[in-house]
Amino acid sequence: MADDENEAEEITSICQGLNINIGTLNQRTIGAMLRAGKKSNELGHPVLLDPVGAGASKLRTQTALRLIEEVRFTVIKGNISEIKTLALGSSTTKGVDADVADIVTEENLDQVIAFAREFSKQTGAVIVITGVIDLVVNDKQAFIIRNGHAMMAKVTGTGCMLGAMMTAYLAANKEEPARAAAAAVCAMGTAGERAYEIMSAGRPHEGNASYRNHIIDEIFNMDGKILEESAKYELR
Amino acid sequence: MADDENEAEEITSICQGLNINIGTLNQRTIGAMLRAGKKSNELGHPVLLDPVGAGASKLRTQTALRLIEEVRFTVIKGNISEIKTLALGSSTTKGVDADVADIVTEENLDQVIAFAREFSKQTGAVIVITGVIDLVVNDKQAFIIRNGHAMMAKVTGTGCMLGAMMTAYLAANKEEPARAAAAAVCAMGTAGERAYEIMSAGRPHEGNASYRNHIIDEIFNMDGKILEESAKYELR
Amino acid sequence: MADDENEAEEITSICQGLNINIGTLNQRTIGAMLRAGKKSNELGHPVLLDPVGAGASKLRTQTALRLIEEVRFTVIKGNISEIKTLALGSSTTKGVDADVADIVTEENLDQVIAFAREFSKQTGAVIVITGVIDLVVNDKQAFIIRNGHAMMAKVTGTGCMLGAMMTAYLAANKEEPARAAAAAVCAMGTAGERAYEIMSAGRPHEGNASYRNHIIDEIFNMDGKILEESAKYELR
Repeated sequence: MADDENEAEEITSICQGLNINIGTLNQRTIGAMLRAGKKSNELGHPVLLDPVGAGASKLRTQTALRLIEEVRFTVIKGNISEIKTLALGSSTTKGVDADVADIVTEENLDQVIAFAREFSKQTGAVIVITGVIDLVVNDKQAFIIRNGHAMMAKVTGTGCMLGAMMTAYLAANKEEPARAAAAAVCAMGTAGERAYEIMSAGRPHEGNASYRNHIIDEIFNMDGKILEESAKYELR
Repeated sequence: MADDENEAEEITSICQGLNINIGTLNQRTIGAMLRAGKKSNELGHPVLLDPVGAGASKLRTQTALRLIEEVRFTVIKGNISEIKTLALGSSTTKGVDADVADIVTEENLDQVIAFAREFSKQTGAVIVITGVIDLVVNDKQAFIIRNGHAMMAKVTGTGCMLGAMMTAYLAANKEEPARAAAAAVCAMGTAGERAYEIMSAGRPHEGNASYRNHIIDEIFNMDGKILEESAKYELR
Repeated sequence: MADDENEAEEITSICQGLNINIGTLNQRTIGAMLRAGKKSNELGHPVLLDPVGAGASKLRTQTALRLIEEVRFTVIKGNISEIKTLALGSSTTKGVDADVADIVTEENLDQVIAFAREFSKQTGAVIVITGVIDLVVNDKQAFIIRNGHAMMAKVTGTGCMLGAMMTAYLAANKEEPARAAAAAVCAMGTAGERAYEIMSAGRPHEGNASYRNHIIDEIFNMDGKILEESAKYELR
């Protein structure tokens, strides 16, 4: 929440985890990201990178790569185009949405997992690839998650919400970042599913603004029991 | 969505249209606006200027005038005070709302259309003047639109929503910017009307936060049939 | 709403009051805060300081102290940790929330009032300390306000909403800043209470997003009668 370079270290010191989201990136904030990241490393806090729009501009790609070089990330979370850009140095990102050519399907799933595992080994981070099928991959485990609803793509910022929530899960489960990240993905997807059910249950005139409110309400009302019953994940 | 000068050109290149809204103007973003505008011109993308608060400060007025000088706009959209400031070099803008002395009425309608037409000829842009009566004017056509609801003024940002939505309409209808702009005005006004009906239909305790959600929901649910039936425009 | 240093004075001149909220503080905006504050002093406008996160970083504490030194504030409004930081030069602020050790209770109430009165004499400002019990204190009066609902803490930004709304109350009641500030606190707390009643009245699946909408709706629908009947304050 605080992005001035001169307070980044102090503010991150009173937190339990750090979410670096480059969505509204500008020159002023890059230094703050680096300083907060390094300080969090020093303090042993989990650090998440959400490389929003990596591949869409040199500034974004280079900033994300520099962050990966100078900060140890617990999790790197993006859509397949963003992750490909960072891992392979090329892709066809179209702004903040994944390019269709890159989409993860049941057919290329194992191939994408192998690719993510390689990137995980290289960076030391759990790699989270979001999409219709979500993947959470480290050197040993791969969670394949099939929660969520297509309507979530009609709400701006659900990916950013997930990054913020995942950082909270990481901070609360420091010993098991992959499981924590997978749980956050399941929770977000479950909220999206339940929000859609509420919307469909006879409420007229609702659209994406109502749906957004329902998602946040469902996250607020989520508990272990709901999550346990709704989580749809496979460990490969 | 990306406002750093160093990525403005790249980001605008992967878009189909550009909306320059000077609402949260600051020195850092002016260069980005100019570069994105020029790049869009080069690429033949429609470009909309929303000169929020022009007339309220020298910085705003001068930035808007400089943008008009250096970028060819497809549409310039503002309230009557903002447009007068840019066309005549003076007005009595009070922040982001139009001054009462400037208000467009049935009585001065033809006079305002003539004024807007003159500004359109001068800039090459379709001129959109928003208010109780909305006007969309180019050198040949003048759409007079009577959609909308007074409650829309109780929600911050409906003008900015219209600018963003209008840019999408322009991008989808490159050959007919005046008609596209008029359709966007009708759609936004229709959403405002329908949102008010929903609010009035027996839902207790609703206010401007609920109304805002209803507006966005109605935009989400809008289709050609609704728009065709609800649009209230006159071509003069 | 306008935070560029080059327009801060002009923009504040067309307003009736100024709310300086350091929530999203950065180097670029400090100059604008100072210029807007001094200009408002010159014009006799009420000026409110919301020293968000003072104590959480040197930048925040020093900026707030510098503002108090260079600008005459009508009201300084914060949680107990923020106010202690500014008055005593030390506290244990944890970000934007008050530290538990500082919490105002029925037991230490008179002590906190005496402390706030001292700070009020020193600064010339009405001191507003928000929490479960809210205090509005100047050199002669102390309003103890017991409106509000615990659920308000589950919505980001209710403190910032109060600061903005309080500035409007101050602008409308220039002769009685302490009463105006107290009325704003009662209004915000009343909105929070009523929003919770609406949420509890049988609406399923609601959470903090719905609650936020209800708060804003209730502020929108608030009138003198509701406020008069609901305000729970004691003058000590």
